Amino acid sequence: MSKPYILISDPTLRDGNHAVAHQLSAKQIAIYAAAADKAGVPIVEVGHGNGLGASSLQVGESLESDVVLLKTARKNLTNTKLGIHVIPGFATINRDLKLAVDIGVDVIRIASHCTEADITQRHIGYARERGKETYGVLMMTHMATPELLVEEAQKMELYGAEGIIIMDSAGAFLPGDVVDRITALVDGLSIPIGFHGHNNLGMGIANSLAAIEAGATMLDGTAKGFGAGAGNAQIEVLVAVLEKLGYATGIDLYKILDAADLAEREIMPLVPVIKSESIISGLSGVFSGFSKHVSRISSEYGVDQRDVYRKLGKRKVVAGQEDLIIEVVLELVKIRKNAARVN
Amino acid sequence: MSKPYILISDPTLRDGNHAVAHQLSAKQIAIYAAAADKAGVPIVEVGHGNGLGASSLQVGESLESDVVLLKTARKNLTNTKLGIHVIPGFATINRDLKLAVDIGVDVIRIASHCTEADITQRHIGYARERGKETYGVLMMTHMATPELLVEEAQKMELYGAEGIIIMDSAGAFLPGDVVDRITALVDGLSIPIGFHGHNNLGMGIANSLAAIEAGATMLDGTAKGFGAGAGNAQIEVLVAVLEKLGYATGIDLYKILDAADLAEREIMPLVPVIKSESIISGLSGVFSGFSKHVSRISSEYGVDQRDVYRKLGKRKVVAGQEDLIIEVVLELVKIRKNAARVN
Repeated sequence: MSKPYILISDPTLRDGNHAVAHQLSAKQIAIYAAAADKAGVPIVEVGHGNGLGASSLQVGESLESDVVLLKTARKNLTNTKLGIHVIPGFATINRDLKLAVDIGVDVIRIASHCTEADITQRHIGYARERGKETYGVLMMTHMATPELLVEEAQKMELYGAEGIIIMDSAGAFLPGDVVDRITALVDGLSIPIGFHGHNNLGMGIANSLAAIEAGATMLDGTAKGFGAGAGNAQIEVLVAVLEKLGYATGIDLYKILDAADLAEREIMPLVPVIKSESIISGLSGVFSGFSKHVSRISSEYGVDQRDVYRKLGKRKVVAGQEDLIIEVVLELVKIRKNAARVN
Repeated sequence: MSKPYILISDPTLRDGNHAVAHQLSAKQIAIYAAAADKAGVPIVEVGHGNGLGASSLQVGESLESDVVLLKTARKNLTNTKLGIHVIPGFATINRDLKLAVDIGVDVIRIASHCTEADITQRHIGYARERGKETYGVLMMTHMATPELLVEEAQKMELYGAEGIIIMDSAGAFLPGDVVDRITALVDGLSIPIGFHGHNNLGMGIANSLAAIEAGATMLDGTAKGFGAGAGNAQIEVLVAVLEKLGYATGIDLYKILDAADLAEREIMPLVPVIKSESIISGLSGVFSGFSKHVSRISSEYGVDQRDVYRKLGKRKVVAGQEDLIIEVVLELVKIRKNAARVN
C-alpha cells in the first residue's frame, strides 16, 4: 500500500511570534516566507502568536499590525498558500476576518479550546462563504478525552470545516495519547485530520509520526522548532523523517534545511531547547504560550517558576487567561510570607 | 503488572566531552558529578568522548588525563557509581583498565562496533575478574540487523557481560528500528538490555521509551542532552517522562532539573540543538562524534558538510576512522576542480 501524501503547514511566523513576544518584523516575515516558498512548503501561517486580531495589552502587542504581517507575507509567497490562525473572541468577523480575506489569505484555521467548538460556527461559516480553504482547530487537546474531542470535532465538521487539526498546545502528550485521539477522530469524522505538536517532553517529532501512523494526513512544523516554550515539531526534521519513512511532502529537504538555517540567523534570538521549566509546564499541561509571562512575573516576585506551573496546571488554565499568572504568583508570595511569619 | 525499575546511566561527563573537543576540566567534572550524586543518579560515566585511553592526536587530546578525570569524579561521588566507557584498541588492559580499577571505578562498559564483539573478550574477562559490574556495549547498531546484533551480544554474554547496551551512535533510528532490535535481544539473551539514544532525528526520548516498552531496563541520558552532534537523550526529560508513565528511576526530578541547569551554566558552551548537519548525519548513519571534525575540515576546504556526511555514510565509516573525513573532503574538492575545468 502506498503511503499517503502529508500536508505540511508551517506556523514559524505565527507560533514563533510567541518566542519573541510578538515582535517579528515585516522584514523578517518577508525573508522567511520567501525561503519557505522556495522550499515548496504548502502553507505558511502568519500572525500574532495567538492569531488574527489578538494583539493586545493582555496577551502582548504585536510589533506589526495584522495588515502589515499579512500583506508582507502575501507579497513573498508565490506557490505557498498563506494561512491564518483565528480564535473567535480575539478575531471578529467584521473587523478582522473580512480584512484578512480581502488581503488574500488562502487558508483559514478557526480555533477554539478543545471543549468550545461552538464558538467557531460563525467564523467557519464566513470563511467557507468567502470560498476559502477552511479548517477547524482544537487547542489544548490533552484536556479532553478522545470521545469528547470527536464530539467537538464533529460540530466543526457540521459547521463546514474541511479538516480538523488537534493541537498539543502544552506539549503534554506522549505517543500513546496521540494515537488514541487521532484514531478516534479518523473513525468518527469523514474529513482529514491533522496534528500540531510541541516539544516540552521531547516528543514533537515522535508524536507527529504517531499521528501519521494513526491516520492523520496533516502536520504542523516550524523552522528549528521556533515557537512557544520548548518549541514546536521541527519542520526540517519532520521532512527528513517523513522522507526516510517514504511519505511524500513535496518539500525539498536541502532547501528546507537552508530555510531553517536562514530563520536561525535572521529571525531567532535563540533556537528553542527543552528547558527545565518547559518540562514542568508540559507535565503540568500548561499552554506553552504562557512561558515568557511566567518567567518574567516569577522572577519579578522571586518565586520558583516550577511551582507556578504546577499551580496553573491544577487550575487548568487556557490561552487568554494570562491574568491568572499574576494571581498564582501572588498566592505563592503570600504562602512564603506566612511561612516566614510562622518561623 | 507493576512496571520495572529503569537503571539510568548518565554519560554527560563522557559523551559531553565530544561536544567540547574533550576539554572538560577537573573543576567541571567535580561540579556536575556532585550535582548528579545529589539527584540520585545511579551511574555517572566519565572520560574522553571515545572512552578510556582514547586521548590522542587522531581523535582529539583530552584536557585532563584519565587519572585526573577519574580521581576527581571518584572524590565527588558518594552514592552514585562511577562508570567508564572502554573501547579495546583505545584502552589496553595493562596500561588503562588496571589503572581505572585501582582508582576505584564501579561500572565498566566494554564497547565495540556492532559487528566486532570479539575484541571485547579479554577486557570483559579482566573487568569481571576484578569484581566490577561489567556490561557489553555495541555501538553504531543501525549498521547491523537484529539477528546479527543478537549473535554479537550473545558473545559478550558468554564472555561474562552482565548486561548489554546498544547505542544509536549516529542518531539514525526511528522507534520501530529500536523495537525490532530490543525485542530480539530480550528474546535471545538472559541478561538485562539497555539503550543509548542520540537526537539527530528528534528521537532521543521517543526511541528510549520504545526500548523500554520492548523490554529494555537500562537507559542512558545526559544533562540538557550534552553530547556528540545533536546530543543525547536528555536525562531530565527521560526522568520526567518515565515518572509520568509510572516507571521508577530513583532520581529526584527537581534535583536532576537543577543539575541540568547547573551543567548548562558551568560546563556547556551551548545546549545541543538539532542542526541541519545533524539531521543529514543521522540520515546518513554517520557517528555523531564526527561532527566537530566534519564541520572544521569542511569549512577549511569550502565544501558542503552535507555532501561530506552523505559520502561518509556511503563508506560506512565508524569511530576511529576520523582520518577518512579529510580523504572525503579532498575527493569533493577534486570533483569541484574537475567540474570547474570542464566549464
